Amino acid sequence: METKPLTKYLAELIGTFCLVLFGCGAAVIAGANSTDIPPSGVGLLGISLAFGLSVVVMAYTIGPISGCHINPAISISMLVAGKLSFKDTIGYVIFQCIGAIAASGVLYLLASGRASFAMGEYALGANGWGANYLGHYSTQSAFIGEAVFTFLFLLIIFGTTAKRANPAMAGLAIGLSLTLIHLVLIPITGTSVNPARSLGPAVFAGGNALGQLWLFIVAPILGGIVAAVFYKVAFEEK
Amino acid sequence: METKPLTKYLAELIGTFCLVLFGCGAAVIAGANSTDIPPSGVGLLGISLAFGLSVVVMAYTIGPISGCHINPAISISMLVAGKLSFKDTIGYVIFQCIGAIAASGVLYLLASGRASFAMGEYALGANGWGANYLGHYSTQSAFIGEAVFTFLFLLIIFGTTAKRANPAMAGLAIGLSLTLIHLVLIPITGTSVNPARSLGPAVFAGGNALGQLWLFIVAPILGGIVAAVFYKVAFEEK
Amino acid sequence: METKPLTKYLAELIGTFCLVLFGCGAAVIAGANSTDIPPSGVGLLGISLAFGLSVVVMAYTIGPISGCHINPAISISMLVAGKLSFKDTIGYVIFQCIGAIAASGVLYLLASGRASFAMGEYALGANGWGANYLGHYSTQSAFIGEAVFTFLFLLIIFGTTAKRANPAMAGLAIGLSLTLIHLVLIPITGTSVNPARSLGPAVFAGGNALGQLWLFIVAPILGGIVAAVFYKVAFEEK
Amino acid sequence: METKPLTKYLAELIGTFCLVLFGCGAAVIAGANSTDIPPSGVGLLGISLAFGLSVVVMAYTIGPISGCHINPAISISMLVAGKLSFKDTIGYVIFQCIGAIAASGVLYLLASGRASFAMGEYALGANGWGANYLGHYSTQSAFIGEAVFTFLFLLIIFGTTAKRANPAMAGLAIGLSLTLIHLVLIPITGTSVNPARSLGPAVFAGGNALGQLWLFIVAPILGGIVAAVFYKVAFEEK
Repeated sequence: METKPLTKYLAELIGTFCLVLFGCGAAVIAGANSTDIPPSGVGLLGISLAFGLSVVVMAYTIGPISGCHINPAISISMLVAGKLSFKDTIGYVIFQCIGAIAASGVLYLLASGRASFAMGEYALGANGWGANYLGHYSTQSAFIGEAVFTFLFLLIIFGTTAKRANPAMAGLAIGLSLTLIHLVLIPITGTSVNPARSLGPAVFAGGNALGQLWLFIVAPILGGIVAAVFYKVAFEEK
Repeated sequence: METKPLTKYLAELIGTFCLVLFGCGAAVIAGANSTDIPPSGVGLLGISLAFGLSVVVMAYTIGPISGCHINPAISISMLVAGKLSFKDTIGYVIFQCIGAIAASGVLYLLASGRASFAMGEYALGANGWGANYLGHYSTQSAFIGEAVFTFLFLLIIFGTTAKRANPAMAGLAIGLSLTLIHLVLIPITGTSVNPARSLGPAVFAGGNALGQLWLFIVAPILGGIVAAVFYKVAFEEK
Repeated sequence: METKPLTKYLAELIGTFCLVLFGCGAAVIAGANSTDIPPSGVGLLGISLAFGLSVVVMAYTIGPISGCHINPAISISMLVAGKLSFKDTIGYVIFQCIGAIAASGVLYLLASGRASFAMGEYALGANGWGANYLGHYSTQSAFIGEAVFTFLFLLIIFGTTAKRANPAMAGLAIGLSLTLIHLVLIPITGTSVNPARSLGPAVFAGGNALGQLWLFIVAPILGGIVAAVFYKVAFEEK
Repeated sequence: METKPLTKYLAELIGTFCLVLFGCGAAVIAGANSTDIPPSGVGLLGISLAFGLSVVVMAYTIGPISGCHINPAISISMLVAGKLSFKDTIGYVIFQCIGAIAASGVLYLLASGRASFAMGEYALGANGWGANYLGHYSTQSAFIGEAVFTFLFLLIIFGTTAKRANPAMAGLAIGLSLTLIHLVLIPITGTSVNPARSLGPAVFAGGNALGQLWLFIVAPILGGIVAAVFYKVAFEEK
């Protein structure tokens, strides 16, 4: 760990920037079918791959520098598990949030260059739920979904990066697990499991996206903390 | 194999839980196109990737703990091949079934939060066949499909985990082979090749899903047992 | 190379069986959208992935036994390159053809269990071209396409399995290159680059599928032979 | 680096040839849905995978020979970073352009064999933007998009090929990052981030495709140069 703190924080900023720009960008710019673009949009499958493959790519890019958390729920879970210092947790989370907000700003620049562009209620890929959001799911489904899937996400992260596991494949497995989470959860909440990823678009979209932000902070962090404790009790290597 | 039995069984429970929640969840919540969610649903390709990538992810997560069977047909085939004790086979199968049922319960919680939710005849991603199921295929197609594809699935598992093979890539190859099986078999049976994966949704759906469960127990286990014997005769390393 | 010839030939049979059953099976059973199966069919992308991932999976399953050619054009190119004996080339090609025909037989069994099943002109995923085939392309496009893409396929095979290359990733790269070839060529010929893969369905479909089989034997083998010579001159390691 | 210059240049030619033939080929021949080809076209997701997987495949094929740049923006960025000689940069760029033009010629041969073929304004997968191109985005969106995404692309290339990173996974991560860039950028510019890839189709399409070529030379090279400087300052290993 001789990497300088600021180098690690900058890596987390760039990693989160890429996650939000690639993931939300695919949803906003290329997600839907369009009558004026003949080939079909990327759909829920393409958006799910965009978020997951972003983690795969960044894991092999910045993983050797910062561990590639690019998600406050992961950094806080790592703090609970005793794998990240309190100081670094603060630094990671702040730079993750800056990266996510910057990515949403660049995405706004790109998307607003379309003649037909209009800021929707959940613009720029914002998370949400309820009567005006995608599949119209309840608050209970949204909260359970975000908490349970972040819990599983962290179990997978702890399992694939354990000493007994194959370190070369961890980045691939972790990224693909984020794709799996999106393959289920997009109609319910748009899929967060990552407070920074939700913060970025909400800052620009305001309104409901900002008003519902609390769930995408509380549920993922709760799921991550429970996973850290559960993994330690059930599976920690001696 | 110094891992405690209960740790291994718990790993199998969590692995099967993830397989059913991710795979059936993608089908139930995000599978179909929807008029109220602009981006296209994940379709048969997305569902196939959800099941296969679940195995990829779990192989690198719990593979080092339990071997990541997460499928009674695999555990029984391993018993026949002399690679799993009788006691562990019982333990694995029981915890796999618990994991699958628990996943279907969580999926029910999530899915029922949609205003338009209704329990269909084959709810929660249940397997089936015949006049009321997807492509309306015959019992013969269903049985041959499930038995032949489980046979091939096990040959691939034995081949990729043999001593002469590359252990790092086995999890990827095995998971992708489950995607391939789904890419063919979904219209016929929804694709089981795994009695636990069929049991989970059937417990909640009841009716036809429960009445047709026998085929998804008999055919996969038959295919798996034949594969164990065939592989030993034809390809076993000396 | 202490593996017994018959073991290697049997591996080639099973590998080609899987390639044809997974690839043509995805096209025939799950390829098209269907009004009675809500989720969208796997489409050209799903079919392309089915063929390519079959090679990925079989490379890690039977690669250590036979080298996983599962394609007469590859075996003949390997003969020209001096990497396969004449006797083994004959054995490989015969068992590849048997595997492909057997797979088409099993696919017929599965597909014919659908009430609405009818043997089309190019049934069971047969290759073809011209006025009655998919995108209505000319014989010239079909021949150039099959020859050029088999040429590139073999360059990729020689390159990724060279001593200077990473052996663990060769199977993945080769399989994905077959996906790429399908992503371009399906509307023109259905994509063969493999005489055995074309033979299987043609035996059952007869008619045009059988009458056009010559191109899927001549063009891929021609492309493969030229690639063997070109690679030796341009890139062979000393 | 005992590989002869011409061998390396030839590898770059073939690599760029494959990138353009697979990527633009998927878009032109299989991209759109078609009323006469029942299965759905590959869509924006299939095109994005075609470009990205081409890089994955070529990285493991010609990476050990030339480093697999197959993109003048990468070669020039490597020159700035001190990792490629001036002479080799000239050689790489010339042969990359030849490969791209040759691929567009072969694609023309294939595509023109369709009875309904007509050279559109942006034929053969040409890049562009504005009122007549896909999503009708502004010049500002096009320029920012191409520059920012090439910048990120090069950061990922420098990061995944650093000494601290896992060399076996670099090709996979770099190729998947090109898929991610396409998942966002196709509706805006068709996605270049590679002057050679834009040159190939423009030579045949002429008109607007040729008139807008400047942006796909300037913006990617600018993004690549800035990335080389930024990476050296922020992340270079001591």
